[in-house]
Parts: sequence; C-alpha cells; structure tokens
Amino acid sequence: MIQRLCILGVGLIGGSLARAVRQAGTVGEVVGWGRRAERLQHALTLGVLDHGEQDLTAAVKGADMVVVATPLAAMPEVFRELSGVVEDTAVITDVGSVKGTVVNMARETLGPHMTRFVPGHPIAGLEQAGVEVSRADLFERHCVILTPVAETDNAAVGQVRGVWESAGAHVVEMDVAHHDEVLAATSHLPHALAYALVDCLAQRDESEEVFRYAAGGFRDFTRIASSDPVMWRDICLANKERLLEVLQDFDAHLHHMMEAIQNDDSEGLLQVFTRAKTARDRIVNRDKGKVTRAKGKG
Amino acid sequence: MIQRLCILGVGLIGGSLARAVRQAGTVGEVVGWGRRAERLQHALTLGVLDHGEQDLTAAVKGADMVVVATPLAAMPEVFRELSGVVEDTAVITDVGSVKGTVVNMARETLGPHMTRFVPGHPIAGLEQAGVEVSRADLFERHCVILTPVAETDNAAVGQVRGVWESAGAHVVEMDVAHHDEVLAATSHLPHALAYALVDCLAQRDESEEVFRYAAGGFRDFTRIASSDPVMWRDICLANKERLLEVLQDFDAHLHHMMEAIQNDDSEGLLQVFTRAKTARDRIVNRDKGKVTRAKGKG
Repeated sequence: MIQRLCILGVGLIGGSLARAVRQAGTVGEVVGWGRRAERLQHALTLGVLDHGEQDLTAAVKGADMVVVATPLAAMPEVFRELSGVVEDTAVITDVGSVKGTVVNMARETLGPHMTRFVPGHPIAGLEQAGVEVSRADLFERHCVILTPVAETDNAAVGQVRGVWESAGAHVVEMDVAHHDEVLAATSHLPHALAYALVDCLAQRDESEEVFRYAAGGFRDFTRIASSDPVMWRDICLANKERLLEVLQDFDAHLHHMMEAIQNDDSEGLLQVFTRAKTARDRIVNRDKGKVTRAKGKG
Repeated sequence: MIQRLCILGVGLIGGSLARAVRQAGTVGEVVGWGRRAERLQHALTLGVLDHGEQDLTAAVKGADMVVVATPLAAMPEVFRELSGVVEDTAVITDVGSVKGTVVNMARETLGPHMTRFVPGHPIAGLEQAGVEVSRADLFERHCVILTPVAETDNAAVGQVRGVWESAGAHVVEMDVAHHDEVLAATSHLPHALAYALVDCLAQRDESEEVFRYAAGGFRDFTRIASSDPVMWRDICLANKERLLEVLQDFDAHLHHMMEAIQNDDSEGLLQVFTRAKTARDRIVNRDKGKVTRAKGKG
C-alpha cells in the first residue's frame, strides 16, 4: 500500500485522482503540490487533499509515489526540481497526453530515478479544467495507458497500475511511439479539427446566424473546441510529427470527398458515408457496457 | 384550425410532427401516407396517426394542409403526384434540409399550387431515423426556418407557422439562398467532416486501436457520422455549391493550422485555439435557456 501519494499539480486530473484514491482508501495520505497558495487552499476547502504544500521538497518528502499532473509545458522544470529531492525508493509517474516528449524530458532530468519512472496517460477528462470540476469517478471504467520503457522497473509499473485500478480504471500497456500514434488519430486530430471548424465559421460574414441555427449535432461536434487552448497547443506541438501525419491523411480524405461532391459522384459519396456509419456504429455497439467505455475526452 | 393534416412520409420528422399536433389538439385529424403498408401499419400501432393511406389521392383528399416529409430524393415524384390531386385550397409545405432544390422542384411541378407552397425546414432531428424514434417533443424550443418565395401567399405562411408553433417550435423566416448558405456551414459541413474523419481513421492500419481508445470527445465529435448515409448523400449533392464553398474555406483554415504546427508557431496556434474556444463558449452560454436551443441535429 502507498503510504504517502504526492500529486504535483492539483487540477482536473490530479484532483480527480486524489479524490478517487482517498475514497477507495487505498492510500495512506494524499499530499498535493502547487505553486499558488490560493489554488491549493481551494483544493483543501473542496476536500480533495489531506495536505497541501507549496514547497516541492516538503511535498515529496516521505512520498512513496509521486504523480506529475501538471500541464505538459511545466513538466521539464518540475522533473528537474523533483530529481534533486524525491526519495530514492519513490515511484514516479505522470499523466501527460503525449508520451514521447515526456519520456525524453524524464531521461534528461531524472538520472538514476528513471528506472522508477512509469509514463502514463489516463484517457479521461472534461472540456472544463481545474480542481473545481474534479470528481472521484472520473476514471471509472476508463482506460489508463502506461508506456513503460527499456529502463522501467517492473515492480514500479505494478504499483502505478494498482493505484489506477483502485481509482476504477482499466489499465493497459503500450509502446510509447504507438501510444502517440493512436492518440494523434483518436484525440489530437479531432481536437484540431474542432478548433479549425469553429474558428473558420466564426470568421465568416454570417457567423452570428451560423451559430444561432446550430443544432445539437454542431454542439456535440464542437464540444471539444471548448477545451483549454494552452493545453491543446502544447499537446499539438509535443506530438507534432504524428499529428501532421494524420492531418495530411485526413486532408487527403477530405479532398477525395470534395471531388466526389464536385463530380456529383453519388455512388462514391454514399460509399464513404456508409463506411463511416458502419465503423461508427460498430464502435458504439461494441463499447456498450465495456470497461473501455469513456465519458470524457481523451 | 386545420381540419385534416396530411403527412407524406411518416419517418422521424413526419411522425414527430404528427405526434406533436395530435398531442396539442390543434388539428382535426392527422392522416399519414407512405408507400409501404407495413410501415404505415407500424405508425398506426405506435399511435402516431389517426389514419394511414397508401394511396396518395385518398390521403390528400379533403386535407387543408399537406406536409411533404419524405427524403429529398423522393420529393420530385411526390410533388408531381401531389399536383394532380391536392385540393385547390390546400396549403403545402415540406421539411427538406436544402431549400433551393426543393423550391426548384416545386416550381417545376406544382403549377398553380405554387402560391400555397411554403418551403420549410425544422432544425431538429436525431442521428437515428424512422417513426420508431419519433417523439411529440422533438421540435419543442427548436427553430423551424420557413423560406417563402416571391409567389408564396402570406396567409399560407401564417398557417404553416401556426402548425409548427403548436408543436412547440420557434418559427423564423429566411431567404432561400441564405438558408442554404447558413445550413451548409452549421450542419452540412460538420456532417461531411465527421464522415470524412471516421472513414479516414477506419482505413488506418491501427484502426482497431484508434477506436478502442476513443474517449467521449471522439464519440461526441463523430456522433453525426452515424446519421443516415443516403439522406446525407442527397443533402450534400442538393446543396453542392454552398457546401463546396464552406469546405474550401475550412480546408484553407486547416492548412493554415497545419503550417502553424509544422513551423512550431506556438503563438499562432494558441490564437486559433483561443478564438475558437471563445466563439464556442459564447454560443453555449448565449443559448442557455433560449428558445433556439436545439437537442438534435440540424
């Protein structure tokens, strides 16, 4: 059992993990670290944490597991600070949406602690951010992907798996590059498209009316464009090569569709739409009642 | 008051209108017409209609209002049949998603009845189709756009408005071309993108995993790709010019975003994402509690 779990960055993900493990009773105590006193105090007031620390050294002292749950852009500095003060036996994990860049920064900064670093990514979230919207059941029946590397100690992987499972998550392991490729397609590409669509429509002459007559389909389609712009800017640049590859693939499909419309290729267009509906319906039907079902964004 | 309302095509939209006006008690009787006996019988069993008719002449006999609620592709033939048998005083309206093509086919087929034809489009729906999913509250607090043309009699517009308002809808009037431009942006473009995305991902080598790790954001984003492929093929081709124009506009925005990612243009990317989030959040906040709020697709 983890006696002291330290969460660096108490936002939606860090706060929800704190709530979940405290509710499950599988961790001795949960200490949260953040740079801003009023945010930490807010998390304490909400009952998310056992303790809050503004000083990273004090926060990780005695912690047998440290979860880095800051935005991607803050991670290099946090890893650097952490490497000097974390306990030698502590397991370190993170929740970053892109694993390649996180593994690189960990290798550059963690030194001997690298063997106990388990890269991770919970496929859960909301378009809102912050500890205010954190919830104990955020990870229930959601996937958490761990991407151990050559250096990673197996026992450390097992401990991180145990914490996520106690939060109700379904844990799977995957190669770092493969994770980034799959997430580029399933998460980063849709976010990029939703942002591009809303920005495109907002700049049109009739934008007010476009949005006034937007129905539920449009609202669902663009929900992810309400996500945190800084977080998604960082994700898109951190997974640049993979994302560009799927964007180009999508663009080719889009041009193919535009040609079919231009040429009144009724049969070709119907084939594309039918293939898409078949694939979409298969996902939804397969997922009904499955543990991989996800309510939030990934 | 309408004594006999005849609905040609009793699917999701026709069936929901029948349920709504019967529940409101604002129409004497509702008769539904369809080509297939078992579908009509099913609608009767579900309690959607007062009567069902397979013969169009019998269906429209004595009807003071006729609502054409068939798929777009079936409309030319239905209008042609209708023009020979509809009562001289009857008001005719439709629910087609593209108004330019419907007005053209009405002008070609309706002859003297054209003055009493009121083109209409309820901005409501579900990704499922069929009378099975019809519901009396489908149009409540949803917009119905009427696009009267030069020939249209004002009294006929008032009667159609009255029927939709009794179904709980908020009725607005708009120019035909403007309707098709606005709907191309707000509805037809998102559907085309959702189909293109799912088809693109389904053809990738790692498609099984892409779909397995798809979270709620992906599900919402692609929900409209589960819509009826035939219906959307017809809509996309019927609104071809307007749709191609917004597709090209979107494609230009997408390329701009791809360049920003390629060039690590962190500031430019953040600007796009922030503009999009601001626009999206404004729509959602403005619509809270407003009559234009829509639950279904449009």
